Amino acid sequence: MQELISKANKKALDYLQKAEPTLVGLGLAIDDIPGMEKKMILHAGPPIKWENMSGPLKGAVIGGLIYEGLAKDEDEARKLASSGDIKFEPCHHHSTVGPMAGVVTASMPVWIIKNKAFDNLAYCTLNEGLGKVLRYGAFSSEVIERLKWMESVLAPVLKASLNLSGEIDLKSMIAQIVQMGDEGHNRNKAGTSLFIREIAPYVVMTDFSNEDKSQVLKFMNSNDHFFLNLSMPACKSALDPIANIPYSTIVSIMARNGTEFGIKVSGLGDRWFTAPAEIIDGLFFPGYGMEDANPDIGDSVITETSGIGGFAMATAPAIVQFVGGTPQDAIMYTTSMYEITEDESNIYKMPTMNFRGTPTGIDIMKVIETQILPIINTGIAHKDPGVGQVGAGIVRPPMKCFEDALEAFVEKMAEEGLIK
Amino acid sequence: MQELISKANKKALDYLQKAEPTLVGLGLAIDDIPGMEKKMILHAGPPIKWENMSGPLKGAVIGGLIYEGLAKDEDEARKLASSGDIKFEPCHHHSTVGPMAGVVTASMPVWIIKNKAFDNLAYCTLNEGLGKVLRYGAFSSEVIERLKWMESVLAPVLKASLNLSGEIDLKSMIAQIVQMGDEGHNRNKAGTSLFIREIAPYVVMTDFSNEDKSQVLKFMNSNDHFFLNLSMPACKSALDPIANIPYSTIVSIMARNGTEFGIKVSGLGDRWFTAPAEIIDGLFFPGYGMEDANPDIGDSVITETSGIGGFAMATAPAIVQFVGGTPQDAIMYTTSMYEITEDESNIYKMPTMNFRGTPTGIDIMKVIETQILPIINTGIAHKDPGVGQVGAGIVRPPMKCFEDALEAFVEKMAEEGLIK
Repeated sequence: MQELISKANKKALDYLQKAEPTLVGLGLAIDDIPGMEKKMILHAGPPIKWENMSGPLKGAVIGGLIYEGLAKDEDEARKLASSGDIKFEPCHHHSTVGPMAGVVTASMPVWIIKNKAFDNLAYCTLNEGLGKVLRYGAFSSEVIERLKWMESVLAPVLKASLNLSGEIDLKSMIAQIVQMGDEGHNRNKAGTSLFIREIAPYVVMTDFSNEDKSQVLKFMNSNDHFFLNLSMPACKSALDPIANIPYSTIVSIMARNGTEFGIKVSGLGDRWFTAPAEIIDGLFFPGYGMEDANPDIGDSVITETSGIGGFAMATAPAIVQFVGGTPQDAIMYTTSMYEITEDESNIYKMPTMNFRGTPTGIDIMKVIETQILPIINTGIAHKDPGVGQVGAGIVRPPMKCFEDALEAFVEKMAEEGLIK
Repeated sequence: MQELISKANKKALDYLQKAEPTLVGLGLAIDDIPGMEKKMILHAGPPIKWENMSGPLKGAVIGGLIYEGLAKDEDEARKLASSGDIKFEPCHHHSTVGPMAGVVTASMPVWIIKNKAFDNLAYCTLNEGLGKVLRYGAFSSEVIERLKWMESVLAPVLKASLNLSGEIDLKSMIAQIVQMGDEGHNRNKAGTSLFIREIAPYVVMTDFSNEDKSQVLKFMNSNDHFFLNLSMPACKSALDPIANIPYSTIVSIMARNGTEFGIKVSGLGDRWFTAPAEIIDGLFFPGYGMEDANPDIGDSVITETSGIGGFAMATAPAIVQFVGGTPQDAIMYTTSMYEITEDESNIYKMPTMNFRGTPTGIDIMKVIETQILPIINTGIAHKDPGVGQVGAGIVRPPMKCFEDALEAFVEKMAEEGLIK
């Protein structure tokens, strides 16, 4: 049996290493995301009902319903959300990922990423910027107006620019940014910069007004997290091909909805293993503290699942100014992740680690054996709807997800007669 | 006397730390560089006559004369250069710096940088890109045509963009890039990226054609060294205020003309201390080797003089892929530079060194005492005119420059009766 597992895990890693995430287009959720519906809201993490949603996810749902014109204010939105007329489904059930609340509604523009090695697609909305934003549960009029501008100006300009530039190789771009102090989750300053310099010559060539084009470039320049919504679907597209490899103990998804943390394991297919999400240890913005923090939320942990983010912290020591700790901690975090991963990335190489590849492919058996949990860099949302981000920090998943997954794996092996 | 020196060096470092290099405009050499003349050619390094110039400097002079229309081909240019009709002067004598050959002619566009703490200005041409370029001694028609395009399209578009954007704070930009894997001399990928994302929204708003604007953005995007010609005059503008502080033993200039290495020392004012330039140890492009290399050339060592470049290599470990060695060497180089410098930068902080400031302000007394020479990251030019870059590597100045400077300093102290 050990050999079966070992072979399966090698296959999973082979798929992951071969992935070629490529930005191929920009579309609309309703047109492009498979199974998307007018009255459906996608959210981060494992499945959850309205009544169990945390503050920031509820806030983002309220904002999403107002943005779609399905509700005119918070009251109406709450009524509608609890009426049963709205379908709530995880982004991950639709080849999609979303940072923080991860709310995706029908009219939202989405990046389209193709893993060219396997031809599978992944989707993600465009990053809204900092301050009061939907993904952190804010839904005031400025949030809705910004989303409308993104739909009516930002996305059309970028879509036209992409049509002129042709596809953009995100694998190569991520390989470069991990040599420029980004880890691709909470630090995307280099990624944002490389994306802007790549697309800007084509933004210029579109038929939009100079004012619109300039606003689009300023919007991207004002937000060092803009690339997050490209690194996330790049990772998602790389991981999807390993979603169902029999006997593999490699984690194919980690995700949180703000209430629960959930994982999926390659050899266990579609089954979620969930446990209550943890509180994040980190640096808080002035005026906020631990008591304001919502538990861990968002699909952005897809970056760690594919071997960057917290796993690549050693290459992004400047991030400790944002998430806390010291550069030595960052190196220690990355080093310890080799204990629970199957391989080292063949392309994401860290100069500070003597060009060692990032630790890639979390093995649930190694997690249980070493009792080392994956490390995650993440933003911290306020626990109440409508507030927004209050800090950033470091968190780990609950051990229970991995224990339950391993138990299920052992049961499955027993069912197949591979162990007695 | 020790106290006088110590006070003077503290003053020099205070000036250097207070510097506020800021991009304030884009002009023309003949209009803006003080003392520039129609039949004058500025070059890198200490003063040198035509007959003593190395191949790449001769090549760049030939190209410069053709570009100016003062000669129609290589033969005419060589005759004119040796006729005595052309004045050759160091860039440094005109508040200017130039990478490699450093040739500046009357019609060339130049960045204008102001050190806002002292209101002094510094100048530098715009970076030409990679491959066959004037600064490496190439002068073929493609080189001249590119220079003409830079004069007629690149510079006007960027000048108009700068008029719209307003000044750009280079101190803050350099502080950011040393946290993104750049050291500001041979690695300027982050700097180039940050500059593009800052200026692009204003390029869009200029009145030029979309084609021209797009070409300008593509040109900058195609060349990760584009920011070098901003980091160099930023450093020059920061160092000029310390050019003449009585009793200070801090180096105010290091520069090479391809034949000789020259330094100036704050307390010794305008006097150059020169010695034959060294050969560079590094990585060569395929087909080239040590036997093709010209000795050390260029004003770009102004970056090391002000505390970045080779001195900040620890923060740019990816650079070893370009200049040779290992990330450990990079840390070792930076660490050893603290032995010969007066202070640590209060703003250029290296995450990989636990946010320690870069070693800043070379003290000739410490160089002699420790026998540790400054470390320099640099490009390698072919020794023949017309060829171009053949590699990149690491080099140190000749010890003789420092020995002679210290001897002169001691003599001066004796003249003033401060030592017997």
